[in-house]
Amino acid sequence: MSADHRHASSHLDRLLRSRNQEQLSAQLAPKLTELPPKVPGGAHVSEETLERRWQLVTRDLQGRENLLDAQTLAQAEHYQHNVENFIGTVKVPVGLAGPLRVNGLFAQGDYYLPLATTEAALVASYSRGAQLISEAGGCTAVLLNEGVSRAPGFAFRSVTECGRFVVWATEQLEELRRRAESTTRHGKLVDLRITIEGNHVYLNFEFTTGDASGQNMVTLATESICAYIEEHSPVRPQYFFVEANLSGDKKASAQSFLLVRGKKVSAEALLTAELVAKRLHTTPEHMVNYWRMSALGGVLSGTLGVHGHYANGLAALYLATGQDVACVAESAVGVTRFEVTGAGELYACVTLPNIMVGSVGGGTGLPSQRACLEILGLAGTGKAQALAEVCAGLCLAGELSIIGALCSGDFSRAHRLLARGKKGTKTETATDA
Amino acid sequence: MSADHRHASSHLDRLLRSRNQEQLSAQLAPKLTELPPKVPGGAHVSEETLERRWQLVTRDLQGRENLLDAQTLAQAEHYQHNVENFIGTVKVPVGLAGPLRVNGLFAQGDYYLPLATTEAALVASYSRGAQLISEAGGCTAVLLNEGVSRAPGFAFRSVTECGRFVVWATEQLEELRRRAESTTRHGKLVDLRITIEGNHVYLNFEFTTGDASGQNMVTLATESICAYIEEHSPVRPQYFFVEANLSGDKKASAQSFLLVRGKKVSAEALLTAELVAKRLHTTPEHMVNYWRMSALGGVLSGTLGVHGHYANGLAALYLATGQDVACVAESAVGVTRFEVTGAGELYACVTLPNIMVGSVGGGTGLPSQRACLEILGLAGTGKAQALAEVCAGLCLAGELSIIGALCSGDFSRAHRLLARGKKGTKTETATDA
Amino acid sequence: MSADHRHASSHLDRLLRSRNQEQLSAQLAPKLTELPPKVPGGAHVSEETLERRWQLVTRDLQGRENLLDAQTLAQAEHYQHNVENFIGTVKVPVGLAGPLRVNGLFAQGDYYLPLATTEAALVASYSRGAQLISEAGGCTAVLLNEGVSRAPGFAFRSVTECGRFVVWATEQLEELRRRAESTTRHGKLVDLRITIEGNHVYLNFEFTTGDASGQNMVTLATESICAYIEEHSPVRPQYFFVEANLSGDKKASAQSFLLVRGKKVSAEALLTAELVAKRLHTTPEHMVNYWRMSALGGVLSGTLGVHGHYANGLAALYLATGQDVACVAESAVGVTRFEVTGAGELYACVTLPNIMVGSVGGGTGLPSQRACLEILGLAGTGKAQALAEVCAGLCLAGELSIIGALCSGDFSRAHRLLARGKKGTKTETATDA
Amino acid sequence: MSADHRHASSHLDRLLRSRNQEQLSAQLAPKLTELPPKVPGGAHVSEETLERRWQLVTRDLQGRENLLDAQTLAQAEHYQHNVENFIGTVKVPVGLAGPLRVNGLFAQGDYYLPLATTEAALVASYSRGAQLISEAGGCTAVLLNEGVSRAPGFAFRSVTECGRFVVWATEQLEELRRRAESTTRHGKLVDLRITIEGNHVYLNFEFTTGDASGQNMVTLATESICAYIEEHSPVRPQYFFVEANLSGDKKASAQSFLLVRGKKVSAEALLTAELVAKRLHTTPEHMVNYWRMSALGGVLSGTLGVHGHYANGLAALYLATGQDVACVAESAVGVTRFEVTGAGELYACVTLPNIMVGSVGGGTGLPSQRACLEILGLAGTGKAQALAEVCAGLCLAGELSIIGALCSGDFSRAHRLLARGKKGTKTETATDA
Repeated sequence: MSADHRHASSHLDRLLRSRNQEQLSAQLAPKLTELPPKVPGGAHVSEETLERRWQLVTRDLQGRENLLDAQTLAQAEHYQHNVENFIGTVKVPVGLAGPLRVNGLFAQGDYYLPLATTEAALVASYSRGAQLISEAGGCTAVLLNEGVSRAPGFAFRSVTECGRFVVWATEQLEELRRRAESTTRHGKLVDLRITIEGNHVYLNFEFTTGDASGQNMVTLATESICAYIEEHSPVRPQYFFVEANLSGDKKASAQSFLLVRGKKVSAEALLTAELVAKRLHTTPEHMVNYWRMSALGGVLSGTLGVHGHYANGLAALYLATGQDVACVAESAVGVTRFEVTGAGELYACVTLPNIMVGSVGGGTGLPSQRACLEILGLAGTGKAQALAEVCAGLCLAGELSIIGALCSGDFSRAHRLLARGKKGTKTETATDA
Repeated sequence: MSADHRHASSHLDRLLRSRNQEQLSAQLAPKLTELPPKVPGGAHVSEETLERRWQLVTRDLQGRENLLDAQTLAQAEHYQHNVENFIGTVKVPVGLAGPLRVNGLFAQGDYYLPLATTEAALVASYSRGAQLISEAGGCTAVLLNEGVSRAPGFAFRSVTECGRFVVWATEQLEELRRRAESTTRHGKLVDLRITIEGNHVYLNFEFTTGDASGQNMVTLATESICAYIEEHSPVRPQYFFVEANLSGDKKASAQSFLLVRGKKVSAEALLTAELVAKRLHTTPEHMVNYWRMSALGGVLSGTLGVHGHYANGLAALYLATGQDVACVAESAVGVTRFEVTGAGELYACVTLPNIMVGSVGGGTGLPSQRACLEILGLAGTGKAQALAEVCAGLCLAGELSIIGALCSGDFSRAHRLLARGKKGTKTETATDA
Repeated sequence: MSADHRHASSHLDRLLRSRNQEQLSAQLAPKLTELPPKVPGGAHVSEETLERRWQLVTRDLQGRENLLDAQTLAQAEHYQHNVENFIGTVKVPVGLAGPLRVNGLFAQGDYYLPLATTEAALVASYSRGAQLISEAGGCTAVLLNEGVSRAPGFAFRSVTECGRFVVWATEQLEELRRRAESTTRHGKLVDLRITIEGNHVYLNFEFTTGDASGQNMVTLATESICAYIEEHSPVRPQYFFVEANLSGDKKASAQSFLLVRGKKVSAEALLTAELVAKRLHTTPEHMVNYWRMSALGGVLSGTLGVHGHYANGLAALYLATGQDVACVAESAVGVTRFEVTGAGELYACVTLPNIMVGSVGGGTGLPSQRACLEILGLAGTGKAQALAEVCAGLCLAGELSIIGALCSGDFSRAHRLLARGKKGTKTETATDA
Repeated sequence: MSADHRHASSHLDRLLRSRNQEQLSAQLAPKLTELPPKVPGGAHVSEETLERRWQLVTRDLQGRENLLDAQTLAQAEHYQHNVENFIGTVKVPVGLAGPLRVNGLFAQGDYYLPLATTEAALVASYSRGAQLISEAGGCTAVLLNEGVSRAPGFAFRSVTECGRFVVWATEQLEELRRRAESTTRHGKLVDLRITIEGNHVYLNFEFTTGDASGQNMVTLATESICAYIEEHSPVRPQYFFVEANLSGDKKASAQSFLLVRGKKVSAEALLTAELVAKRLHTTPEHMVNYWRMSALGGVLSGTLGVHGHYANGLAALYLATGQDVACVAESAVGVTRFEVTGAGELYACVTLPNIMVGSVGGGTGLPSQRACLEILGLAGTGKAQALAEVCAGLCLAGELSIIGALCSGDFSRAHRLLARGKKGTKTETATDA
């Protein structure tokens, strides 16, 4: 987060142009004047609380209507367990991409993908990639691993105490499992990793979570484990926390990339040179030129893994299907690889070790999100694994389309046409970044 | 993305339980059977194209109604430049957090924050943090730097050619600037960084982008630069790409964290021990215990920077205000620091070097998103910098609230109560991760 | 590796000052003129081969004498299995630091540490830290984990083939273990981690290696595994490599930091405020101020872990004791933590997950290296684990001393005095970076 | 640094096999029994101090003779400014590799490379690579950038104070430069980068350091800057440190990799398929297969950059030539790239942004180290830049040789033969890792 001194100077000059340092300091100082009211009402929804909340922020009925439209008002109670201080809904446009043929362990068939985004060209680009893959017989997509963790941390007086604690805790594993699994029908404690750093111990409990994304499930299970530890441990920590920031929750981390968090999925496709020429207007060789330079571009910029823009597709699909969109921060890591085969075809694959999706729980039951899952045929029990495989296929589609566009020079043209509303734009030209 | 051999085995066992390897292989193979139709129509919206798209995916009128409600249908043309293959809108519930008092260079006053999320407890937790900060006189929030980049890559025959190219390109900087700035009213080319890796050269052009987030703006400007280079360079690259994946776009990268991408903002607050006790039911010392252990938890899990859960707040505010929510992948990095001062107060700060927000462009003009910006008083020209400062304040609120909850043992209680719909939940108890 | 365009320009200007671009290009071009002779003789040592090699490089008898002194000549045969094309020895001065009291699982007692370095102030600084720790009763040091890996990579045609291969390979684990362990008396195959990336599989075999550092041992064992796989695998890879760069050998990697490579060790000490004042001329509180700022300095510069300068001590001890000094690249990562306890003491700990040391094999048997191990009392069988604990204690000593020096303002003074040969320097003042 | 619970359990079981927890705890506890004497004498060397030091550690005259041989004793005064508590020298065998033809900006001609190592096969492998490059006309090697930094950190009360400080400090830049450059004849302050993190400011001063590696030089210059700041700053920090761990000194960091530290150098070579077949017994295509899989292996293990084993060659050359071998921790990062050209040749390049070498200062003046520099023809003033280019060429040689060996199956054979002392080993077969 460093800045060249010239940037810093010119930034400061701009700031001080219209005010002196004393004015600036005053502006930045805390102010103990009276505060406006807190937002009332918590999770409860009623016409009266809605009214009171809106009174706080605007008298602009048009704005209010845009958030609190008739349908939203009618469905307000649906949102009660998903948000507090409810005032309406934000509407994110959904475009349909596809079809995307997926030959997966769990996903099978041709999917139309509902993508929610406000970024022009995104749906067109992913749709182009999906159709290209489908023309080649579809992508193979496989769920390779699963697991979500919580990581309580325990502070002891010495590393010697840590050792004694770990001896005890590993002996208790079956009892910890019983406690954890008593809090959930679907969660299973499948592993435990142990980190000792000086006189600190972090226990990383890993769970499978059925069809739910599962972050809350593992929190409650781990809380139950911690209660048992607190009561029974022969060596008492000075303090402990149910999550000590070692689980990788909601952020890109080397740990989640190197191991797994959520679902690890891989998707691959094999495209003939003819198909690459016809649909992407370039060659497998040139796409590999791009891949090589961009993979090193990723390395040179210090990303986790190397890929183009997984976040675009994942955010759009997570959003449409009621996933926790904050998880895009952790999910958008992985490895894209393009090769030319001995037969001159383009082999393309993506591998994402950190997909966080569920087909139940979270926002998946809300009306419009549920409708999107139903478009996919992936609503409800038994569908989370297929959904993860579809995510991988979607990312593969996105990588193929954008790299194709960068290779043929269509990249910026699509933005120019779609984002600025020019006429004559067709789906096939589009791309996004 | 590695798995212990025991995990791998048991995962494979599960997969092979209901089918043998040949069945699996068949399932995973490409299939050249006929494909269903492509999604018709591109960016254009009309009743007829809407109808044709919906015919592809469902006959369930209820699902359709949930995406394509009356208001969405009436406002359909608004979405034409933001999405292709439009079929409706997904509705994300918005909760109001605050007030959050911000004493910024650009943001000044008390903000009610519209947060769009489907995750229970998130709004309650951020609201609690915002109110806490406000009781202490507000947070100081400062925009410290700005800039968005594009990074074309050029492949030459030798490092010698690279050197000759760089000599020429740096001499042309004024002309490149002219070309770039001819494509945009608001974008300014403010810097150029050069990377030579063997016979490859990456040019990282950095722009300021006015009140827009600016990714498209810098793409078009860079395309214009590349056209000039292609025409005039005395040494011709074997090939080049307008973006070679060195800009950090849409992914967490060490480069964006170490330098800046978008807007770098910092926010800080000073809380008395009394206030910490009253609102968070803990002490500054114990919050620093948590900070220390969790900062090292971040280090031990290999995150960029150290923080708790910026992604939660950023995704919710980006979504509500029409930002590109895929950018959460890059924005959710930074440093949280808590200290006890000599006077026994809690000093808390967050610094985020990669906030990608605009107050114009992208999704900011859509009806409900615009309404959220208006609730903030930050719609339209001249507001992007204040919006970035509000983001920093929001992240600070979230860190204080969640760490308070983890210190007092309220963390999982809030999830239990809010997510599972128990009675009697009040705003003050909540938290989220 | 990027450069600001101003730097690039001024660097290029300097280069072109004395020559033009054509001259430069000529200078940089390949030249097919006749080559001087290859270095003769391989691993063999005789007076005649020594003479022939020296004839190639110099007639300066003084220089030759400095490398090929009488003792070296007399001991020349000792070096035959440690180097090829032998011409003499480089002499690195050894200073003695300590005593360092270590209360370890394996190391017990007071150690005088032979440190080989050419950097002034290094030995003095580590010695000061060692003595400080010893005055406090010594450091607790514990070996927390062990393991060295090799990672062959296999390229298949599809991810489906990868799955079939992994099913087979995990079933063969016992046979693979038998093969591996048939090549070595001391190596044990203790784990296997599997990484599938598209149609590539990496198998990460982890071994314990007795008292040897073990890199060669695991190479030979893995080669034997690969021969078995090549012969018996039901699905044939397109190609494979015995090491596909996933083992972390000879470089800092998140993987080695997040898991373990070689030996993981932690050391801690508790120092009273009196002792800190007396020996370091500062306070525990101020050392924690430094720790906090420097830990974030590490985070802000993107290091693996957070620490000050482990490389200094490790390189000096590795060198003195015949370890592979290239492994400093991987070993110099970890976490330093300083805290003030409730009783006002300084708690200090270091944790290093990647110590690569042996007490047999490699250079440990060479005359002077063996003598250094004997000074430590750690030569030969059964001593490697203690040696790793001593490494941790040494790093702790170095962190305490340098941070003490930075806190009291002695940091640069020591350099000034020792490196420039001023009079009156005492051991106690010194530090190094 | 986490461990699977099974590993942790079995490790703990082993530890507790021969002793119980109480015995273990006693063993690990601090012990306040009397300490043996401190090492006497500081930097001073005399027969008497040598005698007193040796009395502390051994009566074994043979061991002593191996460290304190006649030549070392005769040259003892040479070591006075490079080490404290001197007791002798450790002898590291030096092998000669080459010739390596370098076509550089600064390095020109055919170099015989003295490499100090105790690892069998290393010299043979690098020598093979060097000869291969030379047969192809040599490598092009270019110094692309230079600079070494120190990073003092300043703690203020608020981010507002930080801003005021930075305004002042950037205005003082010329004065700071004057102060800095008054402490050194060779150092030049060439840039300043500024990092604000909450109420902390880090100033990263970047210097060029002439022919010295320069770490001490920049410390003294920065100390002088800090003294000026302390005296004149209008806003007084609560505390500051002359180095706050943001310079990247002695450790691999994303910052040093993304920007530059020391010297950035790149080397490249173009090899015909014939030469690859003749000398490496493989094809350019297969070497690119390895490169691709190993580059992703690096990515999958989370290294900075992607390469094979730079540390081996760098450690050996740094050691032989009196460089600070602890710097291998930072230097051994970079990017290796292999491609097949349109004409079927192998293009190979390495780029290292963090080479820390000098031709004066540090250990470069010691007798045997100086002799090694003279073998290279790179001793003394005006040679540091050429030495950095030679480092790049050496790393390229090592990458070519090891990848060749891994491709042809010679990798482990070389180890088997050389390390275990088998007959018939020739230089050409060897490799190392």
